[in-house]
Amino acid sequence: MGLIVQKYGGTSVGSIERIEAVAARVAARRARGDQLIIVVSAMSGETNRLIALAGSISGDPSPRELDVLVSTGEQVTIALLVMALQKLGCEARSYTGAQARILTDSNHCKARIQDIDTRAMQGDLDQGRVLVVAGFQGVDDIGNITTLGRGGSDTTAVALAAAFQADECQIFTDVDGVYTTDPRMVPTARRLDRITFEEMLEMASQGSKVLQIRSVEFAGKYQVPLRVLSSFEDGPGTLITLEDETTMEKPVVSGIAFNRDEAKLTILGIPDTPGVAYRILGPISDANIEVDVIVQNVAEDGSTSLTFTVHHNDMKKAHKILQSVGEELKARSVTADSNIAKVSLVGVGMRSHAGVAAQMFRTLAENDINIQMIATSEIKIAVIIEEKHLESAVSALHSSFGLEEGSGTLS
Amino acid sequence: MGLIVQKYGGTSVGSIERIEAVAARVAARRARGDQLIIVVSAMSGETNRLIALAGSISGDPSPRELDVLVSTGEQVTIALLVMALQKLGCEARSYTGAQARILTDSNHCKARIQDIDTRAMQGDLDQGRVLVVAGFQGVDDIGNITTLGRGGSDTTAVALAAAFQADECQIFTDVDGVYTTDPRMVPTARRLDRITFEEMLEMASQGSKVLQIRSVEFAGKYQVPLRVLSSFEDGPGTLITLEDETTMEKPVVSGIAFNRDEAKLTILGIPDTPGVAYRILGPISDANIEVDVIVQNVAEDGSTSLTFTVHHNDMKKAHKILQSVGEELKARSVTADSNIAKVSLVGVGMRSHAGVAAQMFRTLAENDINIQMIATSEIKIAVIIEEKHLESAVSALHSSFGLEEGSGTLS
Repeated sequence: MGLIVQKYGGTSVGSIERIEAVAARVAARRARGDQLIIVVSAMSGETNRLIALAGSISGDPSPRELDVLVSTGEQVTIALLVMALQKLGCEARSYTGAQARILTDSNHCKARIQDIDTRAMQGDLDQGRVLVVAGFQGVDDIGNITTLGRGGSDTTAVALAAAFQADECQIFTDVDGVYTTDPRMVPTARRLDRITFEEMLEMASQGSKVLQIRSVEFAGKYQVPLRVLSSFEDGPGTLITLEDETTMEKPVVSGIAFNRDEAKLTILGIPDTPGVAYRILGPISDANIEVDVIVQNVAEDGSTSLTFTVHHNDMKKAHKILQSVGEELKARSVTADSNIAKVSLVGVGMRSHAGVAAQMFRTLAENDINIQMIATSEIKIAVIIEEKHLESAVSALHSSFGLEEGSGTLS
Repeated sequence: MGLIVQKYGGTSVGSIERIEAVAARVAARRARGDQLIIVVSAMSGETNRLIALAGSISGDPSPRELDVLVSTGEQVTIALLVMALQKLGCEARSYTGAQARILTDSNHCKARIQDIDTRAMQGDLDQGRVLVVAGFQGVDDIGNITTLGRGGSDTTAVALAAAFQADECQIFTDVDGVYTTDPRMVPTARRLDRITFEEMLEMASQGSKVLQIRSVEFAGKYQVPLRVLSSFEDGPGTLITLEDETTMEKPVVSGIAFNRDEAKLTILGIPDTPGVAYRILGPISDANIEVDVIVQNVAEDGSTSLTFTVHHNDMKKAHKILQSVGEELKARSVTADSNIAKVSLVGVGMRSHAGVAAQMFRTLAENDINIQMIATSEIKIAVIIEEKHLESAVSALHSSFGLEEGSGTLS
């Protein structure tokens, strides 16, 4: 008998029928003896409906009031799920973020959890009740309703698991686990039984949108075992663990992440003097544009060039800034290109294995795919390639590293 | 410069456009210098939508969870109204029932307000903000969300006006005041400038559904001046005052109320012994059936008969009970009749004026309308007549007591 936190996202509670299916799953688990805290999102579509209501009044609504408005979405779900549990004879009680005493700072729409006062909830747990808590929301120290930002329900679940020292935090989604790569692109992609927090962070930030990055960081920090499962079919899902919990040999590559959301900006032929990178990237950062991959090169003529990637939504703004910087620096040219994609190999085993980069580059070369940029970290090698080659690159790498055959698995 | 509480019902905030119209009205009033507390209901249809969601899960949902669910309706409206006010440059802040510290007992779905802790709100008022408070909801002493029952937003407004000792509590509805009788039945019905709390109670309970009875009782108890106005057109509305505030001579009749919702039950030919009324009405009361008008008569043969009215929804149940009581008492007959209507003359002036009843009965007689039952109170005379005569009775009485010509007005 343990204490389990389960989180069900908007799709999993998107209709009365699905709420009843979640209730059946929860009640069955409760009947096996576990204590349960259930975190739910708003029914799918509801948050967007509420934001649209606000948008029809104001293009720039007050963040405080937006939180008052949007937080009703989860409040509806918690009440409905408790009703469904009670109908099954399962004792349960709902908690809004404020009632659960999920204390946050006052940064409306993107608040961070500071503390959870577990006393009230502990009393209900001790009496055998299932707690149903509204995800994504909290309350600041003077009683204002706050929200954690989109997808924040995962963070709520992890924070509750940490506060209650739960045995496991289970995130139910519409996929049955974390895959070696996106199965929609590579049909032979395989579900991983385990993945480390670090690998998960690289996978998530690279475009495997299974979990919110913040919740994974949070889970890692508080050492909460996290499991991703499907709310529509039974299965073990993928367990996200601390690296040192597993004594098995690490695989070289655990998975392949990719995304098409970046654009590449290049400034060519500028004097190679100290501080030039800052003079170029400072104004970009001042404009709140996040930069991902950065490469600087010196040419034969002694001039230098700098290439970096940003989210493609920021490309126009970044291009404008770069053009004005380019004039100041008398750059030879400034270019922008959104027809790019990023492919990343992720695996904690890379730390102790040489040759991964070489194998990656050889595989791409054999498939006539030109590499435009390279970025590496301890557990990741990422390349920027032309977008039209994305699918063949991912397929070739998936096969080259034997991901579909089991050699890359952690379990 | 004063402190005004305004309440806008579901129809008044039933769409984005209407919320913006309310915001414009509020902002204009605020610009004139008054401090304002605005109480709003859920957008029309929203409460029913939420109750239907609950109903699709459970025929008997937990009242606690129903309150969690339904209270989201007003929470949406307060956020949207504040956004609309802010867009007009009017500083405002929303308050849920819990944030407004509207403390109630724990009777979910029909809670009663016990206290309001005004401190937090007073701070915002002092800073010049318009407060927008969710009507119909509160919080109990351990933080459970409660609701006051349908129409409870009026009560919230009156309670806030009492707690803040407001100069006036204004209830905005879809009618522009209280009328001498229903204008849909009598086109010459006239809006009253003033009416006393007592008269209003009689009018409301008799079917002039302008205000919730509880809010009128509450306003009378705490001596809060209450005004009913239209949210769709400008006008002075009707002020509901304490009787002794006005020094003018009282009119005899202020208005005519009526309803078709009652049914009449009669038990004939029972022994006229002590306790017989209790033996008949006790079982009715035990079945939670409310009885309105009661008449007992002794016949020439020494037997007695008893006639009373109940809500027509309760007629079948009451009839069954009465038949079994009738068998015990060896009654000659037991009958039920739902083709009746009640017409009531209301006016504080009746206290000191004789002849009102006589004029009422003469008017009905002149129109060939038979009176089946009569019930009187200090400020009301009610008669039960055949339903088909209702319209002609109300018209004749309205004219007979000069209501359309101004002689019955209080102002």
